[in-house]
Amino acid sequence: MKQQNVKACIVNIGTELLIGQIVNTNANAIARMLNTLGIETTEIVVIADEQETILHTFEQQLSKNDIVFVTGGLGTTNDDITKKCICIHYNTRLIENAAVKKHIQHIRQSRGLHIPDSVLSQAMIPQICEVIDNPVGTAPGMWIYQNQKVLVSTPGVPGELTAMMDEIRIRLQQTFLPWNKIDRHFKISNISESGLSDMLQDFERGLPEYISLAYLPKYGIINLRLSGRHADKQLLEKEMDRQCALLQDIAKEYIFCNQDIEMAQLVGQALKQKQKTMATAESCTGGLIAHEITRYAGSSAYFKGSVVAYSNEIKQNILHVPAEILHTQGAVSEDTVKHMARNLLSLYNVDYSIAVSGIAGPDGGTDLKPVGTVWIAVADKNKCITRLHHLGFGRQRVMDRTCQLALLMLYQLIQDL
Amino acid sequence: MKQQNVKACIVNIGTELLIGQIVNTNANAIARMLNTLGIETTEIVVIADEQETILHTFEQQLSKNDIVFVTGGLGTTNDDITKKCICIHYNTRLIENAAVKKHIQHIRQSRGLHIPDSVLSQAMIPQICEVIDNPVGTAPGMWIYQNQKVLVSTPGVPGELTAMMDEIRIRLQQTFLPWNKIDRHFKISNISESGLSDMLQDFERGLPEYISLAYLPKYGIINLRLSGRHADKQLLEKEMDRQCALLQDIAKEYIFCNQDIEMAQLVGQALKQKQKTMATAESCTGGLIAHEITRYAGSSAYFKGSVVAYSNEIKQNILHVPAEILHTQGAVSEDTVKHMARNLLSLYNVDYSIAVSGIAGPDGGTDLKPVGTVWIAVADKNKCITRLHHLGFGRQRVMDRTCQLALLMLYQLIQDL
Repeated sequence: MKQQNVKACIVNIGTELLIGQIVNTNANAIARMLNTLGIETTEIVVIADEQETILHTFEQQLSKNDIVFVTGGLGTTNDDITKKCICIHYNTRLIENAAVKKHIQHIRQSRGLHIPDSVLSQAMIPQICEVIDNPVGTAPGMWIYQNQKVLVSTPGVPGELTAMMDEIRIRLQQTFLPWNKIDRHFKISNISESGLSDMLQDFERGLPEYISLAYLPKYGIINLRLSGRHADKQLLEKEMDRQCALLQDIAKEYIFCNQDIEMAQLVGQALKQKQKTMATAESCTGGLIAHEITRYAGSSAYFKGSVVAYSNEIKQNILHVPAEILHTQGAVSEDTVKHMARNLLSLYNVDYSIAVSGIAGPDGGTDLKPVGTVWIAVADKNKCITRLHHLGFGRQRVMDRTCQLALLMLYQLIQDL
Repeated sequence: MKQQNVKACIVNIGTELLIGQIVNTNANAIARMLNTLGIETTEIVVIADEQETILHTFEQQLSKNDIVFVTGGLGTTNDDITKKCICIHYNTRLIENAAVKKHIQHIRQSRGLHIPDSVLSQAMIPQICEVIDNPVGTAPGMWIYQNQKVLVSTPGVPGELTAMMDEIRIRLQQTFLPWNKIDRHFKISNISESGLSDMLQDFERGLPEYISLAYLPKYGIINLRLSGRHADKQLLEKEMDRQCALLQDIAKEYIFCNQDIEMAQLVGQALKQKQKTMATAESCTGGLIAHEITRYAGSSAYFKGSVVAYSNEIKQNILHVPAEILHTQGAVSEDTVKHMARNLLSLYNVDYSIAVSGIAGPDGGTDLKPVGTVWIAVADKNKCITRLHHLGFGRQRVMDRTCQLALLMLYQLIQDL
């Protein structure tokens, strides 16, 4: 029996994406949401605000998919033509929507703003559409169901899309009945992608055709995902359990986590469970680790703060790294990060600390300490563990890898691994 | 005379993009590079590692574009099939490339790693391809020129793509002779997108067809881009100058910058010029502002560091915000950020400081201080300027907007605007 997956295409309209002015985070958020529903995204397409291109894409993608999810082109400027294209494609016309008009007036007035005609025109909606409320902006989302297919259209502003996502997810769930889908996740360290792939070669060959394995290496940590899809829920669950046990057995010494979460969340979980606190002392990462930790709501339960000691002066005066060590060993040295990590424990009155110092580049490297040289320390009252890494080139990449590796080291210390 | 633009399509291969596991930063980096060359990206397409889909996309996009830029599918695991698809599309076969083999051996040995067969297989290259060196990894890039069209293929790992970008840019420049392209940028504050669009309506109508205007609002700041393309370079330059002067005249009270750079770079430029230093004291942004500043190489010339004071204990003990103020006014208050900003000046011995405290959400809001309430202070020895913002919902969005608005306030203080 062939699986009848619900298929979707994401269409992002906007020149700013095609010239590389902004990164397409919308496609990512939508793909994530669709994936949790078990809906397969077959394609993501980014196109310009050009009538011909948009109409051609609508037609082509609606013929191949059950859902076409469109973002962008709903602003008040002249280059925004999504509504016009919807009218042409569905042979309908714009009419004023009283509820949307009221909402626009409410939003603008509550901010004490004047309402120009260009903004009021956002209350004009293609007659065929149902409105999806936009709680944070003036351009509503639109939902069209015709011939068992759905076209959704939302603004391109990421915060506005996010605010509509829940309603859209519920509507999709009600409209389509996706097949059963199970994903299982494994976080793996201390082995390269190719080493792991060699190790799992036979396992992968033995998988049934409705279960697949995907590798996602990220900054020194490999995320493995085993995905199964089948009409028979019980059969799927049983086979997934069996394959997971097999995989777990083969790679047990490298698997350190079975959840699909970020390292910062994993560390947060462990700290919350033990009711412990932490702080970071950062040189080369410049606050990235602290930011990564505080991206997640609830981090105030375990994260007290950070000393970003970008200059040696701050390392010496605030973190009390002895001047002699900075002078003889240098800022990028084992002794420096040891002092940073240990002194931060008392300075911030925390149970655990992370300290990093390295050369992110592109300048600052030497023969002895080339770009990518990074020292990491993690500490608690009893222990201070240090490690030297050579993380290669690329300023942002060195910072990101340092951040992930430091969080992994702290997780291992907390769990006493 | 019709303009003969060089057209490109970006094809990103990888299930991890379609299920939303990672954000497509590669498309952004490539689109940016193509745009600097004056090459028009007509479409960005994300597809799965499926032979039929890849072959169809190659054929379709090579028929519509001069350049097809492919990333992904070059790893050592079984789901990586880009090379196979290149062989089928161009009717060619894999042969071993001695230089690539040597490079792989060198890279692995220098890291003290064993070389499994799966990695050595990366030296097998479709015969039709020229190799693009990958200085940071084992999978080489590939360049195919046939029938006046180019297909480029690179790994999907962002750092490896970045490392090949220069060589690819030079090859594209040599292969295609793009038309003259001029972009001019304006950064605008204190006006909404719709207000600005109303103000510039007549200006936009008066633009010749070879010059276009684009709006990109980003966290309370609007970036305007005027783009011109024409075969006649002198004519284009003259007309661009004329239109820029017009625009400058209409919107002069809102334009604060004419460069295409990030706020953090703009602040850095101003500080370097005056040989001044800065630091940040961050509560709700949790290190984001410090990270944003240190993302740019050379920031150590003006940035000394940060105190991330996520808990009140750190605000009180490290930044010396009086306990009474925290108790009576709360952590999110004008007096708190004033003390944070002023005390940081002496603690970190800097010329300028930023301090922020707010409620990023989703929890922690009250009737008096709802989620999105943020106080920002910027200070130097003589002045401390504070501002209250209501930035709405969305944890990451509130943090990002706070970061941009704080940098704008500091820039205005440094420039005495």
